Amino acid sequence: MVILGIDPGYGIIGYGVINTEKPDMVVDYGTITTPKEDSIPVRLESIEKILKYILEKFKPDVVAIEELFYFKNQTTIIPVAQARGVILLTCQKYCGNIYEYTPLQIKQALTGQGRAEKAQVQYMVKAILNLNSIPKPDDAADALAVAICHSQTSPMLNLNKA
Amino acid sequence: MVILGIDPGYGIIGYGVINTEKPDMVVDYGTITTPKEDSIPVRLESIEKILKYILEKFKPDVVAIEELFYFKNQTTIIPVAQARGVILLTCQKYCGNIYEYTPLQIKQALTGQGRAEKAQVQYMVKAILNLNSIPKPDDAADALAVAICHSQTSPMLNLNKA
Repeated sequence: MVILGIDPGYGIIGYGVINTEKPDMVVDYGTITTPKEDSIPVRLESIEKILKYILEKFKPDVVAIEELFYFKNQTTIIPVAQARGVILLTCQKYCGNIYEYTPLQIKQALTGQGRAEKAQVQYMVKAILNLNSIPKPDDAADALAVAICHSQTSPMLNLNKA
Repeated sequence: MVILGIDPGYGIIGYGVINTEKPDMVVDYGTITTPKEDSIPVRLESIEKILKYILEKFKPDVVAIEELFYFKNQTTIIPVAQARGVILLTCQKYCGNIYEYTPLQIKQALTGQGRAEKAQVQYMVKAILNLNSIPKPDDAADALAVAICHSQTSPMLNLNKA
């Protein structure tokens, strides 16, 4: 099974592709970035274009994406959610099989505990994928984490289907 | 000038089309609705499809859309912003000329005061467009209000370009 993990954002979006049939699983990872100088609609168009390219290149069976939550004073919630809408739309059109995971579920799946530190999650991404170092930037590591989370939880339950 | 006004949402999206060269301006108005039973990605796909149809049918020169703000306990902010991202993307792709207005700017443009009641704004929509009754539902009236707002403010300033 090929899984595309996504860490949503609008300036930087992390992506990570794993193949559960490959020994070390990892296929590709990186980020989609949009220039600050561009207007929001133009940035959304860039996100759609690059994400469509990734979906067509890797043809994932499943997309796993982190859920958004509103925290106090989180001023970027509106632009991040707008970008996440474009991400969901594009994944729906070019894959059609989307699962959502909360940060707690991702931490739990990777480290065995929901209150794990970010560094611990990243260390587990490196260990599980047998990489020489922690994937950079953090957004790419977070995207691989949600992909791994899906690979570990999907055999047991399919409760998070978007 | 043909202006498409949009009142963003995910369950109900209001739209209103006006032509400033026509005596009574109004061309069409209504709502895009998405079924509750569908998943969010499927609903976003429906929004894109219907909005694309509206943009191709009326070929607006400009899209005017209401800005979102986060208010305390506004639990729907994430799904509404996600849908607004899809709306911005679709308008960018099929029109390319988007202007954003705050509720205060819309009230100010239609009634002369930013603290006007909703009913007063709706009454002015009816009066300006020379309609027999206030357009229903409210989402359609709100969409016509943002289109009228653009028609009245754009000759003076172009500060709200998205």
